Amino acid sequence: MKRYEVHPSNPAAPLQLASFEPAPLGDAQVAVAIKAVSLNYRDLLVTQNTYFGPIPDGRVPCSDGAGEVVAVGKSVKGLKPGDRVATLFFPDWQSGAPDGTAISGALGAESDGAFTERFISEERGLIKLPDSLSYAEAASLPCAAVTAWNALFEVGDLKPGQTVLLQGTGGVSIFGLQFAKAAGARVIITSSDDAKLARARKLGADHGINYKTNPAWEQEVLRLTEGLGVDVVLEVGGPGTLERSLMSVKIGGRIAYIGVLTGLAAQANPVMLIPKSASIHGIFVGSRAMFAAMLDAIAAHGIHPVVDREFPFAEAPAAFAHMRSGGHFGKIVIRVGS
Amino acid sequence: MKRYEVHPSNPAAPLQLASFEPAPLGDAQVAVAIKAVSLNYRDLLVTQNTYFGPIPDGRVPCSDGAGEVVAVGKSVKGLKPGDRVATLFFPDWQSGAPDGTAISGALGAESDGAFTERFISEERGLIKLPDSLSYAEAASLPCAAVTAWNALFEVGDLKPGQTVLLQGTGGVSIFGLQFAKAAGARVIITSSDDAKLARARKLGADHGINYKTNPAWEQEVLRLTEGLGVDVVLEVGGPGTLERSLMSVKIGGRIAYIGVLTGLAAQANPVMLIPKSASIHGIFVGSRAMFAAMLDAIAAHGIHPVVDREFPFAEAPAAFAHMRSGGHFGKIVIRVGS
Amino acid sequence: MKRYEVHPSNPAAPLQLASFEPAPLGDAQVAVAIKAVSLNYRDLLVTQNTYFGPIPDGRVPCSDGAGEVVAVGKSVKGLKPGDRVATLFFPDWQSGAPDGTAISGALGAESDGAFTERFISEERGLIKLPDSLSYAEAASLPCAAVTAWNALFEVGDLKPGQTVLLQGTGGVSIFGLQFAKAAGARVIITSSDDAKLARARKLGADHGINYKTNPAWEQEVLRLTEGLGVDVVLEVGGPGTLERSLMSVKIGGRIAYIGVLTGLAAQANPVMLIPKSASIHGIFVGSRAMFAAMLDAIAAHGIHPVVDREFPFAEAPAAFAHMRSGGHFGKIVIRVGS
Amino acid sequence: MKRYEVHPSNPAAPLQLASFEPAPLGDAQVAVAIKAVSLNYRDLLVTQNTYFGPIPDGRVPCSDGAGEVVAVGKSVKGLKPGDRVATLFFPDWQSGAPDGTAISGALGAESDGAFTERFISEERGLIKLPDSLSYAEAASLPCAAVTAWNALFEVGDLKPGQTVLLQGTGGVSIFGLQFAKAAGARVIITSSDDAKLARARKLGADHGINYKTNPAWEQEVLRLTEGLGVDVVLEVGGPGTLERSLMSVKIGGRIAYIGVLTGLAAQANPVMLIPKSASIHGIFVGSRAMFAAMLDAIAAHGIHPVVDREFPFAEAPAAFAHMRSGGHFGKIVIRVGS
Repeated sequence: MKRYEVHPSNPAAPLQLASFEPAPLGDAQVAVAIKAVSLNYRDLLVTQNTYFGPIPDGRVPCSDGAGEVVAVGKSVKGLKPGDRVATLFFPDWQSGAPDGTAISGALGAESDGAFTERFISEERGLIKLPDSLSYAEAASLPCAAVTAWNALFEVGDLKPGQTVLLQGTGGVSIFGLQFAKAAGARVIITSSDDAKLARARKLGADHGINYKTNPAWEQEVLRLTEGLGVDVVLEVGGPGTLERSLMSVKIGGRIAYIGVLTGLAAQANPVMLIPKSASIHGIFVGSRAMFAAMLDAIAAHGIHPVVDREFPFAEAPAAFAHMRSGGHFGKIVIRVGS
Repeated sequence: MKRYEVHPSNPAAPLQLASFEPAPLGDAQVAVAIKAVSLNYRDLLVTQNTYFGPIPDGRVPCSDGAGEVVAVGKSVKGLKPGDRVATLFFPDWQSGAPDGTAISGALGAESDGAFTERFISEERGLIKLPDSLSYAEAASLPCAAVTAWNALFEVGDLKPGQTVLLQGTGGVSIFGLQFAKAAGARVIITSSDDAKLARARKLGADHGINYKTNPAWEQEVLRLTEGLGVDVVLEVGGPGTLERSLMSVKIGGRIAYIGVLTGLAAQANPVMLIPKSASIHGIFVGSRAMFAAMLDAIAAHGIHPVVDREFPFAEAPAAFAHMRSGGHFGKIVIRVGS
Repeated sequence: MKRYEVHPSNPAAPLQLASFEPAPLGDAQVAVAIKAVSLNYRDLLVTQNTYFGPIPDGRVPCSDGAGEVVAVGKSVKGLKPGDRVATLFFPDWQSGAPDGTAISGALGAESDGAFTERFISEERGLIKLPDSLSYAEAASLPCAAVTAWNALFEVGDLKPGQTVLLQGTGGVSIFGLQFAKAAGARVIITSSDDAKLARARKLGADHGINYKTNPAWEQEVLRLTEGLGVDVVLEVGGPGTLERSLMSVKIGGRIAYIGVLTGLAAQANPVMLIPKSASIHGIFVGSRAMFAAMLDAIAAHGIHPVVDREFPFAEAPAAFAHMRSGGHFGKIVIRVGS
Repeated sequence: MKRYEVHPSNPAAPLQLASFEPAPLGDAQVAVAIKAVSLNYRDLLVTQNTYFGPIPDGRVPCSDGAGEVVAVGKSVKGLKPGDRVATLFFPDWQSGAPDGTAISGALGAESDGAFTERFISEERGLIKLPDSLSYAEAASLPCAAVTAWNALFEVGDLKPGQTVLLQGTGGVSIFGLQFAKAAGARVIITSSDDAKLARARKLGADHGINYKTNPAWEQEVLRLTEGLGVDVVLEVGGPGTLERSLMSVKIGGRIAYIGVLTGLAAQANPVMLIPKSASIHGIFVGSRAMFAAMLDAIAAHGIHPVVDREFPFAEAPAAFAHMRSGGHFGKIVIRVGS
């Protein structure tokens, strides 16, 4: 069988295709024939060993996979061969608030990920899929979509008629757009590209702001909200955009702090938190319970993840390069297997 | 000027038209030319003196009014003549959790209500209306719509993809239907009348259950939710339906306890609360902050309250009789003034 | 080895001592030499088959046990022989809100309980004990103490300076007293016995009310709270006391609905929920996360559970009879093993 | 009558004593003979015009005052001459979440403050005091104590057995210490002065860390919490200490962002928010409802604010200089009137 491995110690070939023999299945384990994975910005950081923890050579990357159950251990009760499943980013974060146990073992970093023809998992690390989603669509969900859900509904407590600010058109932002509209909220989205803004408006965005032609975009956000600011920001830029996000959020508003696109080392002045009684919440993906609630909404609303482009298994490096270029709209998917 | 007064001590004529001279306007007060009021079931109880507290003869009934500001006291800052406003059910419940001060002075019971050509209020007891609402529509909001909003979003914490159970097609339930759909939830509604169920489906209800032909309607609710039950119930029936609502709600679900249609003295067995970890929350209308959030959603979604029927000012008794008959779908409105 | 079994089909001998051979240990399982169990009112209901679900003959009773780990399966990571542990009431409710999976498998009802010399459990069904607790004390915790914790801090959201109402001096109420005082709250407790009230005051209760000599005890509660009512009620009586609890709770207050001492079939009139904006929350014990938070407080405050009386293993029927008599103050414990 | 005024345009004499004639009392207003004020760090910023908004010359400083009601307007219901009251920092933030209206009109910045012999206020801008507090003690509360209460119990959701990290021994930190101990929490406090740490331990602090001799104090915090970190941080330093606070907080923990002692322009790297799922909450004092809840706890626990030093009315500049020196422990109070 084939899988991809990362070799951070080898910058010339950080991503390598390898053959392997699957380990024998434990009593409580499930074997999945992965059909598709999707990429996240953190997968790039993993190949460069610039993610939160050190990555050993040989680690299988990617948190996000979807496939078909092909075998189950004898004590597995909730899954059977033929079931369609997706992976959980954190197999041990089932519900409630996170703790050290819950967020250990993240796929594709602390433990081997889904970029493999045969993925072995404890039963609790997989979730059943609704029929409405293809494998490529389902592979888009575990990291970016659960993150957007957590940001909007756990942390953001979004209600109909409120306003959400989204930054850019990457995976988290486009899921944020789809979920916020399903929840009856108003959406303002930024991009450097008018064509992408037009596409976002087709998906339901109420307002688009080109942050290249309008670098003081927070002023436009305030104008669009009668000077009040938005209720929730999905901050994917990181420190480089945080101060503008703080200007854009209303009194008592919430910033879901998700991304580090402007770098892990950048800094920001958070003083505006005080007069605004605002808050910033670190979002580290989410729990199985959030994933399940999100699947209910996806099924109820007929939501289909926006797949920017699908690459064949052999072209993984090209897919990673496409992620690095930042030119995508929605999710980048790689088919797995033949 | 004319207004209606209730005389609970006179069962033969509990509702009487009367002439009056408005009191002089205080510095912080606002005079409103009321254009429309709407009726709630509690207004019936008030005329019978069977509402929570004793009602003095001569009390002006109705919590729900909308009209035009005609004069303001010299220290009023936020309103001016010509502004279109609605009344607050509780003028002193501005935001946050209720306390004894907040819920004293309810219009049409503890203090004189809106069923008058000239309503005098402190500025904080009025809220500005969006242009999209007519006076008849706006007069539908202060009690029933704020109650439904409180139930779904403060107490119910409703998220897209969740399921709400609504009972009957009175004002609270129809607002509940409109708001729940705006929030991306699934709606199950009950009625004794298939025509009303059809009408509710046109407004977006996903499922209708005729509780006359299907008296064990909680079984149908469970069937429609794959045995799990609903996330939120808007309980308007009271003790007589509470046990079925407890059967209908999912583990961890919430029952917003709103109504007493089955009587103030009825009883229920709440034991199912325990194995379900469910909760019952008394809903006593809501605050100005909830009203404002609701108006944002109404404006953003272009929601129009469903007005069952409008009566002229002189035909108030007929309007009360129509409320008593229970035949309405949505809100009963009475025009005020000539 | 020995264990107790319930035989609900045999009312003459519903509790029987039996010999058994422990099953072989699975990879993820842990064997515990139970040293003590404690009784809860529900254990009585189980022997009478009047608890929520049907109980098969031969079921090992008791949710509450504490003992020493004697063997662990090869994939167990967090426990080792010699560790001191207690059982979880719900082995699968680890954290967050409950769902159907979390609350299946309750010990001593849906699955075999702790009243056995050798208890076999998945690792996640056990929790490590602080050194400060004896086995008898620790065996008091899994049901009653976690219930009280959930009621006060998850549902009740208790803050220092607030007031709690406790009913009677059974296990839940006495834990409620200890935890509420640790949290800086004021405690009012009821009992039919002045000696028990005096004992409760020694444990920190601020006020005691004898509900025999003062049957309208809610009036005394209102007097003690300047007419405002208490913030949180731990309702252990059930429908028979619920209406008085609703009179006793303040506007916006919360009733943790725990007990059914007045019967599973009794009824109550919940109408006062509405003008009070109060809520009733079914409490079904709690999660591992709540148990862990509670152990932190127990360790930090040097709290020792109040053990009413310890019975030897052979005298289990006498212990159950003592529970039935209602004469206890705190927890009834039975030593297990020789 | 006498009052102090700030003149930011005159750096040589930014604080000046002035005579004035009180304005006539409005119908809904209350006149208070102020007996004491307390200083906060923001009062220093106000005299320098480096606080959030511009300060006009002649503004009366100080948010924190306590005194005796000497006259009430004719529509005032809840206060009468002789009542002992304190000022609210935000007269219009009565309860619930803040909005633009609630946080306009802050005393001593947006509106005239309490540093005057005769303070005129709307009734809602004053709160009655328990008998247990002297005027000097009560004058300590409106800003620092309400801030600490908001941080610990609204934002921090503190429970018994949890751990709080406090920074320094200024007013907010010492109130945080007293309230956290009343709530049964464990307290770690930092200072540059071992004598102050010893004094904090006498007030109940469980651990003291001298950040001068132990500059990597976050390592000591982790050691004291078995590597887990604290539940809540009251961050008064600002950007200069925020990164260490982020290292000190547990997974899912909360940082109450209160202070700017390290400067309004400083920056921090918030990236650790993400892997910790932690949050930072701007704290802008709090509402009347928080003040009232705090007074309940103060009365129930017999808490007395720690007054560092009292200055006579004429020595206000010395009091401000003492605040600037940072040498205080608890609150600096100035007596008002003769």
